[in-house]
Amino acid sequence: MKFLLFIFAGVHLLPLNSGKATYRHDNSQRTFQEIKDEIAHYGDVAKAIINLAVYGKAQNRSYERLALLVDTVGPRLSGSKSLEKAIQIMYQNLKEDGLENVHLEPVKIPHWERGEESAMMLEPRMHKMAILGLGSSIGTPPEGITAEVLLVTSFNELQRRASEARGKIVVYNQPYTNYSRTVQYRVKGAVEAAKVGALASLIRSVASFSIYSPHTGVQEYQDGVPKIPTACITVEDAEMMSRMVSRGSRIIIQLKMGAKNYPDANSFNTVAEIVGSKYPDQVVLVSGHLDSWDVGQGAMDDGGGAFISWEALSLIKDLGLRPKRTLRLVLWTAEEQGGIGASQYYQLHKVNISKYSLVMESDLGTFIPSGLQFTGSEKARAIIKEVMSLLQPINVTQVFSAGEGTDINFWIQAGVPGASLLDDLYKYFSFHHSNGDTMTVMDPKQMNIAAALWTVVSYVVADMEEMLPRS
Amino acid sequence: MKFLLFIFAGVHLLPLNSGKATYRHDNSQRTFQEIKDEIAHYGDVAKAIINLAVYGKAQNRSYERLALLVDTVGPRLSGSKSLEKAIQIMYQNLKEDGLENVHLEPVKIPHWERGEESAMMLEPRMHKMAILGLGSSIGTPPEGITAEVLLVTSFNELQRRASEARGKIVVYNQPYTNYSRTVQYRVKGAVEAAKVGALASLIRSVASFSIYSPHTGVQEYQDGVPKIPTACITVEDAEMMSRMVSRGSRIIIQLKMGAKNYPDANSFNTVAEIVGSKYPDQVVLVSGHLDSWDVGQGAMDDGGGAFISWEALSLIKDLGLRPKRTLRLVLWTAEEQGGIGASQYYQLHKVNISKYSLVMESDLGTFIPSGLQFTGSEKARAIIKEVMSLLQPINVTQVFSAGEGTDINFWIQAGVPGASLLDDLYKYFSFHHSNGDTMTVMDPKQMNIAAALWTVVSYVVADMEEMLPRS
Repeated sequence: MKFLLFIFAGVHLLPLNSGKATYRHDNSQRTFQEIKDEIAHYGDVAKAIINLAVYGKAQNRSYERLALLVDTVGPRLSGSKSLEKAIQIMYQNLKEDGLENVHLEPVKIPHWERGEESAMMLEPRMHKMAILGLGSSIGTPPEGITAEVLLVTSFNELQRRASEARGKIVVYNQPYTNYSRTVQYRVKGAVEAAKVGALASLIRSVASFSIYSPHTGVQEYQDGVPKIPTACITVEDAEMMSRMVSRGSRIIIQLKMGAKNYPDANSFNTVAEIVGSKYPDQVVLVSGHLDSWDVGQGAMDDGGGAFISWEALSLIKDLGLRPKRTLRLVLWTAEEQGGIGASQYYQLHKVNISKYSLVMESDLGTFIPSGLQFTGSEKARAIIKEVMSLLQPINVTQVFSAGEGTDINFWIQAGVPGASLLDDLYKYFSFHHSNGDTMTVMDPKQMNIAAALWTVVSYVVADMEEMLPRS
Repeated sequence: MKFLLFIFAGVHLLPLNSGKATYRHDNSQRTFQEIKDEIAHYGDVAKAIINLAVYGKAQNRSYERLALLVDTVGPRLSGSKSLEKAIQIMYQNLKEDGLENVHLEPVKIPHWERGEESAMMLEPRMHKMAILGLGSSIGTPPEGITAEVLLVTSFNELQRRASEARGKIVVYNQPYTNYSRTVQYRVKGAVEAAKVGALASLIRSVASFSIYSPHTGVQEYQDGVPKIPTACITVEDAEMMSRMVSRGSRIIIQLKMGAKNYPDANSFNTVAEIVGSKYPDQVVLVSGHLDSWDVGQGAMDDGGGAFISWEALSLIKDLGLRPKRTLRLVLWTAEEQGGIGASQYYQLHKVNISKYSLVMESDLGTFIPSGLQFTGSEKARAIIKEVMSLLQPINVTQVFSAGEGTDINFWIQAGVPGASLLDDLYKYFSFHHSNGDTMTVMDPKQMNIAAALWTVVSYVVADMEEMLPRS
């Protein structure tokens, strides 16, 4: 998960009407009671899905499949050999699973490597600091950058103290409020520091909890602003430097980063389907991203989301079901670099936007779900609430506002109903983009529940007589 | 905190009667009601201590003092320059605080350094593993040790598979049950592996929680058994290797450790007192250890314990109090290497064992206390319960069994009543002996509460008319 702009920041999503197409998704003549009755008929199917996923032969399958992949290939950074290998393995997996229209859609993606990197505090005492360079950052000269620290807690403070920044390493010790707000320091920290003449910037990791763990992620340079090297540091070191500064100590750090940007690499979105029986050109899309950061195993972000999405199709196939419209699985590439795979997918496929009933992405963890996040018309929300009531047997029926996901936001902003899985975000952001994102975080029983929810929602929406109504 | 043998393992402590001295600590003619009445009279003093520590001018002082020390000198490994510096700073601090009989008692302590270290998984895939060499471990040859892994989950499994161990790196993936049991793998893992011909051993970190964090600690070689290099690995890597093995994969690791043992170094236990007004030769001892591992800041283990012990004397002095018997602060050296400083202190001072009313050590964290752990006679326990009832205003009145601490166990085993602070051990063992043991874990308000408890107990026991009765 890269940005999460919509869930927390309170950004209001205005569905953008395409100039070309008039949506005709709410010309239903049916009463809501009739729709409710239709959904209620899926009670037995929902129970069959839950039984298979949570108690039956398929239990723990998505966990086991995920463990095998991430243990075998490790983390899967955009542009890396391991991402390429993971895509090839998944292509074979989906074929062998008997899914339909299994294919790869080519995308050019960024290729950045961190190389060797280190940060040493030289004053007020020698202290080797844990760092992780931020995605797309340039490196330092081989001898590193050795400079005094200017520590600030906000962009406002940086502005107030702009005259002190020249020639220094700006350290951001911003408090963690929520991910969406706090991540702005990771994304824009280097640019803002460079604007006032800093040589490098170090950003307190954007994390809810830390055991001296740096959390990486992407950052963005801006045209016309000098590019400076940037990395994240631990919460612990940021807080220590803050205490040192408050005592009047002068801090000097030597930063060495071998980070480098290479030409774009070839990659693919990985696609598989269960083709619809009645409206095969209409689509419910389930998805997660296959790429990850180059630390940990990318098991949680977003192995879990990708694999419960695959599991949805597997479970439906196992039960011998075929929904009326097509259920499409997409495993996005290069989400972490800004939804690169999903952006291209949207450009290629948006001509059919009127055929997308629902776009779903799970990219906030697959722990015990709190429920489903949903963006769409009030009428669609009422329908989704009815669908979620089918999850009563596993007690996860809540529908929250603001369905989102870097990869599906393109569609949501264009008016397509969107849904995402919500769970324990404190836990999620404890491990997010760190070496701690491994299978150890994952729990097979929790993944079973998440997969059951994901499958019931995607199947029922794909099988209902009408598409979800739009605004 | 090094071992924690007594609290969890259910070892029953038999007070050992010294052959030379007959203890005369329970010749009181007073009824328990009279003792209760005496303790009840300390209600106002207890409130004054609590007010000063928690709400008054001294609030956050122990936290601020600790932060200054550990930010200034960093971690304080036995035999290191930083431990030496910390001791000198503390000597000055205690002098400047106006305490009495401030002095250093010389001790020879182990000097081990980890040097450069790394572990690379070569098969089934390249993976750089986080490790921390274990204290007292030898290093590897410069080219490292490259060998296949034999993964076991217990010493029993190692015995059953002894014939497979020769020439291999034994990896222990023991589950974490509790610290006392699980730490046996860290302490004896190398010896047991060497006995069956292994070249090295890697031990799953003994920790309640992990963000890919290795947790170091001491290990012990055994005479007549070859010394092999040994380090801890993360919970995550141990679990991954277990999954790999279960799939039939062969694992090969290259381990490089620059660890080296040097000749013993000069060090000191740091001592200060408030001399008793009526029975100056009788002692209540409060303590924590000043040394730490060479990772993190040693803020929690055991900066917190050392500094609330100092705070106890500071608060009593600030309130203009002087107990009837001497309140002695000892900041132990080289606890982590097996209570080296405390062992020597016991040898030197045990001649006066009959004069020790109570020995106290805080070495399990200074978070919000659950209460006090206590070892002693039933009558002494009843007295301690009354004393703890004085903590009602801050709602920490519980007395648990088994007071302990590596540094005070010498005395407890010889029959002296002993007390230790108990708090959230899940939290404690999340950070214990890792880079995460920093001031970020500490909370000034929690330390205030811990210091108030520590001060009330030590002061009242030091001021009561009679010493605590022994068995």
